Amino acid sequence: MKGTSVTRTRGRACPLAMVLLCGLALQTVATSAQAQDSRRRRTTQEQKPLVLTPEQTAQLTKIANDRKLNIDDLVAASKTYTPSGRLDEYVLFSSGGQSGQVFAIGVPSMRLLRSIAVFTPESWQGYGFSGLDDPVQERLMINGKSVPWGDTHHPALSETAGDYDGQFLFIGDKANARLGVIDLRDWETKQIVKNPLTISDHGAAFVTPNTDYVIEGGQYGTVLGYGYAPPEDYKKSYRGMVTMWKFDRAKGRIDTTKSFAMELPPYWQDLADAGKGASDGYFFINSFNTEMATGGVEDGKPPFEAGASKRDMDYLHIIDWKKAEKVFNEGKVKVINGFPVIMMDTSIAEGLLYFAPEPKSPHGVDVTPNGQYMVVAGKLDPHVTVYSIDRIKKAIAEKKYTGTDEYGVPILSFDAVMEAQVEVGLGPLHTQFDDKGYAYTSLFLDSAVARWSLGGEYADKHSEQPWKLVAKTPVQYNIGHLCTAEGDTVSPDGKYLIAMNKWSVDRFVQTGPLMPQNFQLLDIESPGTTMPVLYDLPIGVGEPHYCQMIKADKLKSWGVYPEVGWNPHTQSLDPNAPKKGDEGVTRQGNKVLVKMTAVRSHFTPEHVMVNEGDEVTWRIVVNETTVDATHGFCIGGYNINLSMEPGEYTEFRFIADRAGTYPFYCTEFCSALHLEMMGYLHVKPASKGTADAATVK
Amino acid sequence: MKGTSVTRTRGRACPLAMVLLCGLALQTVATSAQAQDSRRRRTTQEQKPLVLTPEQTAQLTKIANDRKLNIDDLVAASKTYTPSGRLDEYVLFSSGGQSGQVFAIGVPSMRLLRSIAVFTPESWQGYGFSGLDDPVQERLMINGKSVPWGDTHHPALSETAGDYDGQFLFIGDKANARLGVIDLRDWETKQIVKNPLTISDHGAAFVTPNTDYVIEGGQYGTVLGYGYAPPEDYKKSYRGMVTMWKFDRAKGRIDTTKSFAMELPPYWQDLADAGKGASDGYFFINSFNTEMATGGVEDGKPPFEAGASKRDMDYLHIIDWKKAEKVFNEGKVKVINGFPVIMMDTSIAEGLLYFAPEPKSPHGVDVTPNGQYMVVAGKLDPHVTVYSIDRIKKAIAEKKYTGTDEYGVPILSFDAVMEAQVEVGLGPLHTQFDDKGYAYTSLFLDSAVARWSLGGEYADKHSEQPWKLVAKTPVQYNIGHLCTAEGDTVSPDGKYLIAMNKWSVDRFVQTGPLMPQNFQLLDIESPGTTMPVLYDLPIGVGEPHYCQMIKADKLKSWGVYPEVGWNPHTQSLDPNAPKKGDEGVTRQGNKVLVKMTAVRSHFTPEHVMVNEGDEVTWRIVVNETTVDATHGFCIGGYNINLSMEPGEYTEFRFIADRAGTYPFYCTEFCSALHLEMMGYLHVKPASKGTADAATVK
Repeated sequence: MKGTSVTRTRGRACPLAMVLLCGLALQTVATSAQAQDSRRRRTTQEQKPLVLTPEQTAQLTKIANDRKLNIDDLVAASKTYTPSGRLDEYVLFSSGGQSGQVFAIGVPSMRLLRSIAVFTPESWQGYGFSGLDDPVQERLMINGKSVPWGDTHHPALSETAGDYDGQFLFIGDKANARLGVIDLRDWETKQIVKNPLTISDHGAAFVTPNTDYVIEGGQYGTVLGYGYAPPEDYKKSYRGMVTMWKFDRAKGRIDTTKSFAMELPPYWQDLADAGKGASDGYFFINSFNTEMATGGVEDGKPPFEAGASKRDMDYLHIIDWKKAEKVFNEGKVKVINGFPVIMMDTSIAEGLLYFAPEPKSPHGVDVTPNGQYMVVAGKLDPHVTVYSIDRIKKAIAEKKYTGTDEYGVPILSFDAVMEAQVEVGLGPLHTQFDDKGYAYTSLFLDSAVARWSLGGEYADKHSEQPWKLVAKTPVQYNIGHLCTAEGDTVSPDGKYLIAMNKWSVDRFVQTGPLMPQNFQLLDIESPGTTMPVLYDLPIGVGEPHYCQMIKADKLKSWGVYPEVGWNPHTQSLDPNAPKKGDEGVTRQGNKVLVKMTAVRSHFTPEHVMVNEGDEVTWRIVVNETTVDATHGFCIGGYNINLSMEPGEYTEFRFIADRAGTYPFYCTEFCSALHLEMMGYLHVKPASKGTADAATVK
Repeated sequence: MKGTSVTRTRGRACPLAMVLLCGLALQTVATSAQAQDSRRRRTTQEQKPLVLTPEQTAQLTKIANDRKLNIDDLVAASKTYTPSGRLDEYVLFSSGGQSGQVFAIGVPSMRLLRSIAVFTPESWQGYGFSGLDDPVQERLMINGKSVPWGDTHHPALSETAGDYDGQFLFIGDKANARLGVIDLRDWETKQIVKNPLTISDHGAAFVTPNTDYVIEGGQYGTVLGYGYAPPEDYKKSYRGMVTMWKFDRAKGRIDTTKSFAMELPPYWQDLADAGKGASDGYFFINSFNTEMATGGVEDGKPPFEAGASKRDMDYLHIIDWKKAEKVFNEGKVKVINGFPVIMMDTSIAEGLLYFAPEPKSPHGVDVTPNGQYMVVAGKLDPHVTVYSIDRIKKAIAEKKYTGTDEYGVPILSFDAVMEAQVEVGLGPLHTQFDDKGYAYTSLFLDSAVARWSLGGEYADKHSEQPWKLVAKTPVQYNIGHLCTAEGDTVSPDGKYLIAMNKWSVDRFVQTGPLMPQNFQLLDIESPGTTMPVLYDLPIGVGEPHYCQMIKADKLKSWGVYPEVGWNPHTQSLDPNAPKKGDEGVTRQGNKVLVKMTAVRSHFTPEHVMVNEGDEVTWRIVVNETTVDATHGFCIGGYNINLSMEPGEYTEFRFIADRAGTYPFYCTEFCSALHLEMMGYLHVKPASKGTADAATVK
């Protein structure tokens, strides 16, 4: 025994342990609070301006040289590094692609703050793991079959007067044409609606300026209402569509009874954007495959990608949704698969739908902050094409058509509606805006971001010629969408741009054949030709498609639920939530009711005795009101796992169909005695034999 | 039309578009490769040493002051910032807690590189979404029921001679007592084994120094073999256990036929660690609740957390696994639920199992790099207790027992086996090591990391007194486990330490009531009292418990599969993989076989015609050999989603049980014509009526 610092009686635990034990939960919090205070002081105290001493400069230089950093790296590090406890300025809500989730990322630190489970069950959040009648599992049923994954593409933050209000987030599932509604008070998915017309879509979600409607555009032509028709009947029987989901802000839910769709030609509708300001009341959808190619390489026909790219121009869809709403309210619809649809003939007759030619195979259509211009980026054309709402309105009023398409939709004269074209580079795809009169377009083939100057009333905001390419920054690699701070609202902030690169190739440690995406942060604060890459963030938890960046202080998230006994599904206090003192297990026939409370560090009751075959309803309330005092609850082998945030109430139900001794325990490391926060579900065998066979000795 | 930079004929897409179209996929790659080269040059060129000019210093100072950064922040930023294309030095493999996944994080940049799906289906990775007979879904069955989530606790990298070899990663599921095997060539889970003795466990996974065995310890006492016994029979019928899973490195699989378990008393066994060097052949497990408390607050009894903490000392389990392997091979086992178990009587008689007293409710037992010392951190005792293997061996040889426990297991004299005790602070939990003779212990209640000096042969490595607390750094908040670079191997690297904090409270933007964890990076390069926090990484995708940090260049990951047609389930070329030219759809009765190839940017065939009710087997091979050229494949509404990395072959099967027109498409944004990479599954209705009803017009 060579120890020199042994200060206690060997062979027994220090008496301190007993003191600790009694108030352990409390002490845990107190300790945290103290540490917290000391860090807080550091972060909020008046800080003297930093003046680097020669020693400090030498220290930084040495680190830089040891790590082979240059001055650009040091600048980028200084612009992104966010010390402990300092909050990010923006939150980026990104779709998670085929992970079925949404990801929230802090900017400028580029740290993934949280995933939000939407279309794919996720056990950390306890999303979809609460037994029979699990509300998530029920939501994920399509035609009686579970489809527990999604391909999330376009998140849309709720807006008030065209500006993000931080209240809700909508997200579309391309694979299964579903729409999810997330409440940003508790960051939980509250509703999923399935489109009754089409199996898959693409252009969801986009909101109108006051979130009256959430727009879900289609994509691949289909027989509306999940119908069947052979490909040779494509032109006759296949259709496109756009669905207008009515949002009830007070209830925080889509109101399906007030929602409707519009039939569209079987072109492949792509992204949408709602008008605002000058263009309020309209929305715009791109399309491709106006050739109505039906592929068929297996029969020696041109493959889809060639057939769908033959024509020089596709059609920008211009839709007057306020007029469409009126037509819907007048009942001028056909009901398909139980859902009201304004048919094309009606749309044409009522003047709801117009086309404008747009350079082939576009992806994004993006409305400028003032609502005056629609920017279309056609990935096979090196220009962006800018349309003006004034010109569009005038052309409609003056019937400046060059004809109709084969379904009778009027086509506006390109010359009449086009405002400008700007050559930006190869593979333009998506455009957003800043506060200085610039637009930013992603260039997939160039692997670059282009900055270009807007004209019209924006011409006064910058010193460039209007409608002109100003700068390009290479990104790594193959950028899809991009996003600037509040860059698709009426008042973009500029500052930061996210390049959502689809390939990362050599940017990160090789993670097997499946590589992360690469989100690059660009500094767009300075006008002119400089917009350097500041940061590479690997996204290895999904393949995001689109994101929106909101000022963090607009989010009014709950730290704890408003009251103990809160039901997040109803967003209200639940009358079934057990009260302290009411805990216990009761039985009626083979129906068992468990009333449980959970608090650091125990469950009450700790033993639940049931019989094999019993139907068990289990209610748990978390008696915690401290931020971050989350508990989990799982029953091994029974596929039950809950995440129970402070104040939360949960009910779940299952059949105790297999005898045995099942520990349940808290799955969130909540306190020093977390491992002891457990109990047993005892499922007594129906026949005595089962138990004996397994019992040892 | 005010545009000034329009250089093309208005009204038509640039002819360039047609050129682009033909070679688009190729160009995409070429563009990437060029950009890649230019970035590579930047990162690998000989860089002139940086000498900051006054202007550059002023620039940095201005940014720092604008963002209220101090010199410590600038130093931390410089030490962690990793420029685009520069690879991280280490990879941290972290359990994902109740997310059921594993996360890989780059160090020092602290960027989440990738998740690896293990116990929870994950659709981005196409893990568990391949229809009938999906190998993942089959793996996740327990007693005929799907349990598609896990509570991953302890990852273990495979070792050769006690050092990480970068080949495999094992991960335990506490909730359901399962073990996952991940192949680090393609970062995919290859096998899941369910423990046949217990529903839940805790102490998995830990490997022996050459990965002969993967150790899975139990936790909550249970009736072995999933049996039932009432709690009043606890001492008689409940047991602990440890399972030794035999690993077949050549096959990359656990060999369940050569695996065995050992019966233990119904104490709650906790973490384990295998001996190495001086202690090779042994392993060590902590335990708590040697009181065998059975809780029962509902009946006014002491709750588990009090009952399980009454005694001053619990028992460190010392197990001679080489001798146990011999006993197992001699057949001295009892078969429980089909699995061989060495019963306690045998273990005692054969000298396989000894106890040493340890201060109450310990969590971690950690063996020093030389194998000489076992460090036990008891969370209710402010000391770490150090045992010496020499003393243990001597005490066993000399039978220095103070008696036996009530199951007859010999208890070694604490004085005989204890080497030292070091007072480190409140709530010590887990210890790892560096290359300078220091140990690091997490302090849950203190919210701090303690550095202390080792003695024995380590005393020469540092200038401290041996067995003495040297430094403490506060962390935010409530640290659980920690991890140093290769810190539990025979040759730790020091440099970096990860504090795995369970609460983040105010460190990040509030993400609703469910908050991320906080992984803090500490700089432990300098000996002595300085070890600052460099970085806070929010973990909002799970609740990690434990991690290991490996030098990145030890990982020999595949960028693409070795051959086109590779089956990752068998890790070999699959004879069923369709060849280019063999694509098509064939039928035998109601069984349809689809042979498909996928390459940028099309699937062949593009149309698949089946009849309602057909059983469809679908084989796809990805004809790509370029790193990061991944495709996805989904069929909307049919719950099929694959991730198909370059060269990968996949087969899936489903019943076409609902008529309709189902687009399938590539779910990974693979190329400029990605949206056109699609086709249709046409499911012809059995009765003509179905189609007509839904068809429009």
